Amino acid sequence: MKSTPQTYQSAGVSLAEADKAIAGIKTWVESTFNSQVYGKWGHFGGCFAPDLSGIKTPILVSSTDSVGTKLLVAIQAQVHDTVGQDIVNHCVNDILTCGAKPLFFLDYIGIGTLQAPVVEQIVKGIAMACRQNGCVLIGGEMAEMPDIYKIGDYDLVGTIVGIADRDKLINGSSLVPGDILIGIPSNGLHTNGYTLARKVLSKFNLDDRIAGLEGTLGEELLRIHRSYLSLISSILSSVKVKAMAHITGSGLEGNTKRVVPEGMKAVFDWSAWEVPPLFALIQQEGKIEIEEMRRVFNMGVGFVVGCGKDDVDRLLDIARGRGDKPMVVGEITTK
Amino acid sequence: MKSTPQTYQSAGVSLAEADKAIAGIKTWVESTFNSQVYGKWGHFGGCFAPDLSGIKTPILVSSTDSVGTKLLVAIQAQVHDTVGQDIVNHCVNDILTCGAKPLFFLDYIGIGTLQAPVVEQIVKGIAMACRQNGCVLIGGEMAEMPDIYKIGDYDLVGTIVGIADRDKLINGSSLVPGDILIGIPSNGLHTNGYTLARKVLSKFNLDDRIAGLEGTLGEELLRIHRSYLSLISSILSSVKVKAMAHITGSGLEGNTKRVVPEGMKAVFDWSAWEVPPLFALIQQEGKIEIEEMRRVFNMGVGFVVGCGKDDVDRLLDIARGRGDKPMVVGEITTK
Repeated sequence: MKSTPQTYQSAGVSLAEADKAIAGIKTWVESTFNSQVYGKWGHFGGCFAPDLSGIKTPILVSSTDSVGTKLLVAIQAQVHDTVGQDIVNHCVNDILTCGAKPLFFLDYIGIGTLQAPVVEQIVKGIAMACRQNGCVLIGGEMAEMPDIYKIGDYDLVGTIVGIADRDKLINGSSLVPGDILIGIPSNGLHTNGYTLARKVLSKFNLDDRIAGLEGTLGEELLRIHRSYLSLISSILSSVKVKAMAHITGSGLEGNTKRVVPEGMKAVFDWSAWEVPPLFALIQQEGKIEIEEMRRVFNMGVGFVVGCGKDDVDRLLDIARGRGDKPMVVGEITTK
Repeated sequence: MKSTPQTYQSAGVSLAEADKAIAGIKTWVESTFNSQVYGKWGHFGGCFAPDLSGIKTPILVSSTDSVGTKLLVAIQAQVHDTVGQDIVNHCVNDILTCGAKPLFFLDYIGIGTLQAPVVEQIVKGIAMACRQNGCVLIGGEMAEMPDIYKIGDYDLVGTIVGIADRDKLINGSSLVPGDILIGIPSNGLHTNGYTLARKVLSKFNLDDRIAGLEGTLGEELLRIHRSYLSLISSILSSVKVKAMAHITGSGLEGNTKRVVPEGMKAVFDWSAWEVPPLFALIQQEGKIEIEEMRRVFNMGVGFVVGCGKDDVDRLLDIARGRGDKPMVVGEITTK
């Protein structure tokens, strides 16, 4: 018996489909390019000539993250551009907590079976969000791994590099007892808690309309993680901000804690805002303890800004002037 | 019937195990820190103050990649530090092709069930390789996703940012017909072609000793992707290098093509070196066509350096002086 010659294709890896995907994303990637991109697309490394004018001591601020199992909602709904936007905005918010502005972004897609149209949708979303945040999509990688990911499944990872001036870095170190914590609303679960949310909501369909929710369940679950860059940039230009936190996994307390100096703590007034209906639905369906809810989900507050008492009104005014709904959610006290 | 309250833990995500993993990796991560790290561990973004002294126009060169299904060999062998080194060296080599030196690295581990000891081994490997390449492990992320990854499985993604001076960037643009391509040996499959290799070698066990191979099959398959940084740095300090290519997926021709100017091509003499036994074994077991082998695997050449004819001897001498075995593998011609 003569056996068939093996190929990469017969083992489940299609270089032809990869070429098709690369052709499909090229325009999207290049749509993010600005004058700081150096050289052309397709080299082993993405080259970026940072504009350092006006920066005394440049600090590169970076972060890497993924979308978590929000992906499985996207895969079920066959909508792939929103998660591309999610991952960019998530990373932008992470480095924004230090006061950094995005320079460039790199994406990674690990996928069970490469489908060029799916990759193109993901990268389209990434590119759109990159443009919105003034960020170049400088590089990326697709890896087709049929033995790790199930057919149709993928993981999506993003890495951002931004820049800040050392003297303007914000890290919470100037916080003192009495300082105020202002919460900026989230617009949904953002990208955290989906493994739990999906489990407790599994009896519903994505196109179900549930009392209290604006859109279908699928629309609510796929709402794009908002970017706080534009709002926070406005605030930073006229308010002395002392600390910022992006409310992701481990919730409002767990994340704010990361920027509070030793000997102090953040105390929250959980009655200061109304928890959006989606969180209430999840809590009710899963009979989840309130402490667990607050540890896993953002509960309606996606970003926290800490400032002195005297700056609170000005900060609230700026945010309200932009149509946002900032809330005083807590304060800094001694431990 | 009263149902049990749901928790993140009951949905398959353990924040406690994540805390354990973070405690386990802290020392490894901090072992990579140098004076350019700004601020402390645990913020939302990693802060790095690049030393720009001696650099006229800084270019940030970045790349992101994964280890591919070499991971499944590591998982089967229960060895997790080598893949950590693989991903760092892979990324270091990618940006080295432009002449960039590593500044910092970020890792991402997506995992089915978080096991702190496994994560610690992976990060130990990453940290070791970071130190060897003078690179800081500035950030990272673990995501426990039981609905995407099988129990025991994980994906490992790395992103590197390095720096080069614009006037010293190497991109192949100065290549002319007659220039010579020198191949530097690989030390195994590096991190490419594993989906095919694993398939055709599946009848063997990892601890099998196969005629012609130095170690067990498992040892051969897990050999750490070598870093070319030290060798190439030596070469760059005394030879005018015109182009470099890292031989990964799509092989010697596919990768070298990326740095050859329009109107020219790279012509290889495939008889110039002996293909190592591991590749021959894979080819034989899978009855794989030679063209497919050359497209999928590095075939013994892991890095290519292009230079003028007059520089060849000097380049070969430097590499040989360091115990390496460089080979003239091809030349540049008109198309």
